Amino acid sequence: MTALAPRARHRAERAVVFGAGTWGTAFAAVLCDAGTPTTLWARREELAGAINDKHENLDYLPGVRLPDGLLATHDPAEAASDATFVVLAVPSQTLRVNLAAWTGLLPADALLVSLMKGIELGTTKRMSEVIAEVADVPAQRVAVLSGPNLAKEIAEKQPAAAVVACDDEDAAAAFQTSCTTPYFRPYTNTDVVGTEIGGAAKNVIAIAVGMAEGMGLGDNSKASLITRGLAETARLGTALGANPMTFAGLAGLGDLVATCGSPLSRNHSVGVQLGQGRPLHDIQQPMRMVAEGVKSSESILELATKHDVPVPIIEHVVKVVRGELTPSQVLRALMSRDLKSERLDA
Amino acid sequence: MTALAPRARHRAERAVVFGAGTWGTAFAAVLCDAGTPTTLWARREELAGAINDKHENLDYLPGVRLPDGLLATHDPAEAASDATFVVLAVPSQTLRVNLAAWTGLLPADALLVSLMKGIELGTTKRMSEVIAEVADVPAQRVAVLSGPNLAKEIAEKQPAAAVVACDDEDAAAAFQTSCTTPYFRPYTNTDVVGTEIGGAAKNVIAIAVGMAEGMGLGDNSKASLITRGLAETARLGTALGANPMTFAGLAGLGDLVATCGSPLSRNHSVGVQLGQGRPLHDIQQPMRMVAEGVKSSESILELATKHDVPVPIIEHVVKVVRGELTPSQVLRALMSRDLKSERLDA
Repeated sequence: MTALAPRARHRAERAVVFGAGTWGTAFAAVLCDAGTPTTLWARREELAGAINDKHENLDYLPGVRLPDGLLATHDPAEAASDATFVVLAVPSQTLRVNLAAWTGLLPADALLVSLMKGIELGTTKRMSEVIAEVADVPAQRVAVLSGPNLAKEIAEKQPAAAVVACDDEDAAAAFQTSCTTPYFRPYTNTDVVGTEIGGAAKNVIAIAVGMAEGMGLGDNSKASLITRGLAETARLGTALGANPMTFAGLAGLGDLVATCGSPLSRNHSVGVQLGQGRPLHDIQQPMRMVAEGVKSSESILELATKHDVPVPIIEHVVKVVRGELTPSQVLRALMSRDLKSERLDA
Repeated sequence: MTALAPRARHRAERAVVFGAGTWGTAFAAVLCDAGTPTTLWARREELAGAINDKHENLDYLPGVRLPDGLLATHDPAEAASDATFVVLAVPSQTLRVNLAAWTGLLPADALLVSLMKGIELGTTKRMSEVIAEVADVPAQRVAVLSGPNLAKEIAEKQPAAAVVACDDEDAAAAFQTSCTTPYFRPYTNTDVVGTEIGGAAKNVIAIAVGMAEGMGLGDNSKASLITRGLAETARLGTALGANPMTFAGLAGLGDLVATCGSPLSRNHSVGVQLGQGRPLHDIQQPMRMVAEGVKSSESILELATKHDVPVPIIEHVVKVVRGELTPSQVLRALMSRDLKSERLDA
């Protein structure tokens, strides 16, 4: 991870953000605020039109005034033309299908940047792997952005830091420059695997912490779950080749703590409602936005099983999501089983 | 850190807890619930009498029914006689004076256990060092207990885990047995330095996180402060000989997250009020209980300076406590300066 250094900006740099959900919209505003001409692609023509007319995304980020320079479109060809940075912010499990429709439109030398935090069901691939495969580009052309970045707080221009990870440090530095503002400070890092595993697993751990909260447990129990959740995330990431120190940083501990502390997190909120005894389908129905952790819990468990890494908290979240155990059975199991096996030095 | 193993209990095991504040009282109840005959020493005769009469500590833990078997006394000789475990839970900066008055009363082979989280002003000694020096016992006779242990939640018997650290693993295991209950699970560890530094520094980091909260900043900023605060704590601890992994565990990350998340923490609450612009002397006056972090911030900074370890967050808390900087000046400084220097791999 290198310090932030001012860097000459190419005149032609331009970004497109595919996906006008909460984070895609908030991050498009960051790019504009950093001086990068940016287009936001929305699936629905009405939403793109409304963003252009009102400078507000009433569906996903109501109450936040978007930069005047931010243009929205529902035409992917128009959005992608001349883009130096192609930022992908669609639901993880739809990435493959969406990206396949866009690959012919993307400039040949663009850097593809993932804002997504999930693991693909069926393939257990990380988002950057799906991107490299579908777009048929080398890993050096794919970056990921992660960190303690609750979208609504960033849209309100509250101070936040993030990690831009890419095998190609120059590419990471170029993207870093394109999205640095006085309130948003990204750092570069070459640990793509650790950055993505930290981001994907924290959504699942946040569900577990939310369940404890929904059951009325306090900060001692929640802090123990966060501690042991980060330990199992680091164990999985390290088995996949990540640098263990990534999990002590912004994309590991930082992102996990922000998510578990916030009422703004959908994953945390799903967990709270599960802990209060509501069935999953009742919770998800009225949610316009996807709780990534619900789907990713299955794929992360599959990934961990393939690599023989025990992830007891994630495994128990899967059992609740499947309806095999209740949250109180799970917390009882974790409090006896996992505590027994905890080793600080393992 | 070893797994919890059932252990034969000596028939004569008996504990005394010196200090009937919130944590001393709550922990005395844990010992009783674990089946260890326990006496609670209170400075004031009225408080000891009220605890014996009402089975409640109205001053420090109102609303919590204490075990019938818990005896309180204000006579230190009566309290200490025949104790196998002498548990010390007085304000950190009063430990030296208090303990000096009791040393003649303590059984020769007792294990002295610190519940305190602070660094002595003037000497920059950890609590276990002060104990060994004043009681004139080897380090093997001194243990420390730490972890995500908000006293009120433990008094309500909510599930919590903790760390018992001692150079002598058998001594740690004996004390572990004496305080294990279905809701309180201690683990043993031989890293006394890391356990104590984690506990002392987190009170100061919690003040910084509280300041951010009091200024209206959200979970992204708080999570960044927690991440970087733990990194500087680990840097200091490692320089003093601690195992860096201790900071990723219950006595590091776990304790820090519980404290920073909780409205029950005095240190966190002092920070929130500082962040809202109240001067320190206005905050401390009505507080019956001490916010350890206010005093320890100075001694931890002195310790870090002695060992040439940069601790920017702790240093800035000291400047606010001294009235040299306002919380908003401090957060501005941290957001520019510290972010620039952050290295995940450092």
